[in-house]
Amino acid sequence: MESEAFGDPASDERGPVTGPRRSRPLRGMRIIEISTYVATPLSGMTLAQLGADVIRIEPIGGAPDRTRWPLAESGTSLYWSGLNKGKRAIEVDLSSERGRRLVADLVVSGGRRGGIVVGNSERHPELAFEALRERRPDVIHVLLTGRRNGETAVDYTVQAATGFPLLTGPEEAAQPVNSVVPAWDLAAGLYVTVGLLAAERHRLLTGEGQQVRVALEDVALATAGNLGYLAEAQLSGTPRERCGNYVYGTFGRDFATADGGRLMVVALTARHWQDLLAATGLTEVVSALAGALGVDFGEESVRHRHRKLLGDLLAGWFGTRTRAEAESALRATRVLWSAYRSFAELAALLPESPLMGKLTQPGVGEHWAPGSPVVMDGEQTPPETSPQVGEHTGEVLRAELGLSAAELAKLREDGVIRDPGGHQRDRDPRTREAGQP
Amino acid sequence: MESEAFGDPASDERGPVTGPRRSRPLRGMRIIEISTYVATPLSGMTLAQLGADVIRIEPIGGAPDRTRWPLAESGTSLYWSGLNKGKRAIEVDLSSERGRRLVADLVVSGGRRGGIVVGNSERHPELAFEALRERRPDVIHVLLTGRRNGETAVDYTVQAATGFPLLTGPEEAAQPVNSVVPAWDLAAGLYVTVGLLAAERHRLLTGEGQQVRVALEDVALATAGNLGYLAEAQLSGTPRERCGNYVYGTFGRDFATADGGRLMVVALTARHWQDLLAATGLTEVVSALAGALGVDFGEESVRHRHRKLLGDLLAGWFGTRTRAEAESALRATRVLWSAYRSFAELAALLPESPLMGKLTQPGVGEHWAPGSPVVMDGEQTPPETSPQVGEHTGEVLRAELGLSAAELAKLREDGVIRDPGGHQRDRDPRTREAGQP
Repeated sequence: MESEAFGDPASDERGPVTGPRRSRPLRGMRIIEISTYVATPLSGMTLAQLGADVIRIEPIGGAPDRTRWPLAESGTSLYWSGLNKGKRAIEVDLSSERGRRLVADLVVSGGRRGGIVVGNSERHPELAFEALRERRPDVIHVLLTGRRNGETAVDYTVQAATGFPLLTGPEEAAQPVNSVVPAWDLAAGLYVTVGLLAAERHRLLTGEGQQVRVALEDVALATAGNLGYLAEAQLSGTPRERCGNYVYGTFGRDFATADGGRLMVVALTARHWQDLLAATGLTEVVSALAGALGVDFGEESVRHRHRKLLGDLLAGWFGTRTRAEAESALRATRVLWSAYRSFAELAALLPESPLMGKLTQPGVGEHWAPGSPVVMDGEQTPPETSPQVGEHTGEVLRAELGLSAAELAKLREDGVIRDPGGHQRDRDPRTREAGQP
Repeated sequence: MESEAFGDPASDERGPVTGPRRSRPLRGMRIIEISTYVATPLSGMTLAQLGADVIRIEPIGGAPDRTRWPLAESGTSLYWSGLNKGKRAIEVDLSSERGRRLVADLVVSGGRRGGIVVGNSERHPELAFEALRERRPDVIHVLLTGRRNGETAVDYTVQAATGFPLLTGPEEAAQPVNSVVPAWDLAAGLYVTVGLLAAERHRLLTGEGQQVRVALEDVALATAGNLGYLAEAQLSGTPRERCGNYVYGTFGRDFATADGGRLMVVALTARHWQDLLAATGLTEVVSALAGALGVDFGEESVRHRHRKLLGDLLAGWFGTRTRAEAESALRATRVLWSAYRSFAELAALLPESPLMGKLTQPGVGEHWAPGSPVVMDGEQTPPETSPQVGEHTGEVLRAELGLSAAELAKLREDGVIRDPGGHQRDRDPRTREAGQP
């Protein structure tokens, strides 16, 4: 096995790279992404932020998530722009066999850097694992489905199916409370990425490809099992009940301050608990209480059982302090805490975050956007612009499949591909302005 | 570069393996995990489920998450057992320099399969990246912190800090609603895993190690940015408001049935929407309504703007059907939907799930537990038992560091290590019973 076969990892085959060497460990890997919504686009973006060349395939006019809210004033989707940063995008008629064959050609091309596809649809026979493997035995085919049996599902329906909404929200809530954070989409997109990287490692070492499958519902079920919820439901006679913003099994809850502030406060360990009591002047009161009850609040389970009593005592302290006073007292301790912030408050703080960089996105304008949350040797990939639909159609098909100008013109004429404006350009997206402040 | 240097990937250096070859693509990779709670233990378990040999380091008596709720009747933590499946565990006095040196020895040992550590603490100087790199230049050091600057934070405080609890829960809620799903822990654990695999790929190709850092708060911030929340807050004059269980930007909400059932129903596309109207007999009514209002409900944004009106119409239909009738009507469509299930209802369905396997865990007993949600070439790693604290102390130190029986006895005598019962055994955990049904 020769390492040159995978491209020189110290140089990007697509030209100059913003950012240093080790923060782009996946250079020399090319991913074809055929995807919509959150999970698989997040997978592609995560790989792109680590240096892979990710080419998102769009049907003519763009995929249905192209218009997903929230929108910028121009109508550009902030959601789509956020989930496709740093990719290239090509526009192909997936309803025609010619278009699908072209995409399959792309998947199997690229030598050792190619042959990897990630998607969330089994609709197209030309793009199925078996069909691609016949054309390229070492293909890596990564597929996200809703359910294991291939049925569709989305984060909100998986939430309903897997128990958590009935334990989320105020204790007195009569109805299930869904989470606005699409946790299963996020986790599924990252499991997909883990599976892809594991399969690519296997291919590096053995030359063998394979299919990787992850089901959104399985991700939620696995998590429910991994966190003990499923074992508890099977083994315990007493079903778990909603406990609002209390942290289950230890002491933590939110507190209102006198001036309308609100803080989340968590005492996970005995040390945190002692610190919290000292900061609020409640050490003696709580000690007397413990003595009277014959219990030790140093134990997390005891704190949890008596959470309301302890919470009421502490609520009295927080309710007679301003947010600034309460924060100042907590800052001097090891207690885990944070003020609740609205997105507007959060937006005002973004310039201070080393994760964020100023990004000028066509259709959106200048704003602070996150780079990669994975920091490698002190360096992180800054936020990069997301492509326009069809922006790189000509560039990609020319460079990856060696199509001639005449062949591209014929494909355009026949409506098999579209590249609005893109065929006049030869710029690499990585060279566009996408700096840290 | 010779592939033998990384061990023959077709054979496990730790002996016989349950499950076929490709479902264990990380065989020949050894991870030292020094971790607590959810994120880094999930990372280690995910790597173990893909075939890595993961050795969890515990302080004497176990880490603080050892007793985290929920508990089995025996007092064994179902949470800890769920997050440490398939690992080996050793018990070392981390408060002593001798203990910490022993762990550092382990990290830098193992040749090409070793030299990788994942953890969530910077407390111990002997285990810091710089110290380990001095001993082994190609070490891969993966660290999860609460905040980027190293400050502590946990999922609940990060939730508060990053906006989502003020948008979660009923529209009329006066207070923030935290999610019981630790989405940031999950995503952080998986980002850590992605970073580790990317770094290991870089090392395979170049021989270079590096440090990988992920901050829990950055994961939440990056997600808020990736989903468009941060751009919206910066660019839009109108802050987003809570919309309960309605899906933002399209049509989806929960409905009560006549017999007390509750279903989550989502019409993401125009097709879903047409199907939903047809199934509920509302096509003509809604068409007349659209005509009267001069709007097209085929557009997701229009459905979202008129969600209450449309929701009320549909609620009338669901409210006069039993759950069985409503499910039967929806089953004939492409609409996305699911009934809400409690964990008790979910538990009863687990034997049907191909993800789940019967597991007999000491201290817990027999129950259905999830295997890996990543299915490779049709095969998945079944659920494996989690270790007892100190179960593999002797075995690991003997095999990985070549310590003699006399050296182990001395370490035990001096209280540097503990292995309750473990030193009498030589079994590989992978050979223990952990079958699919």
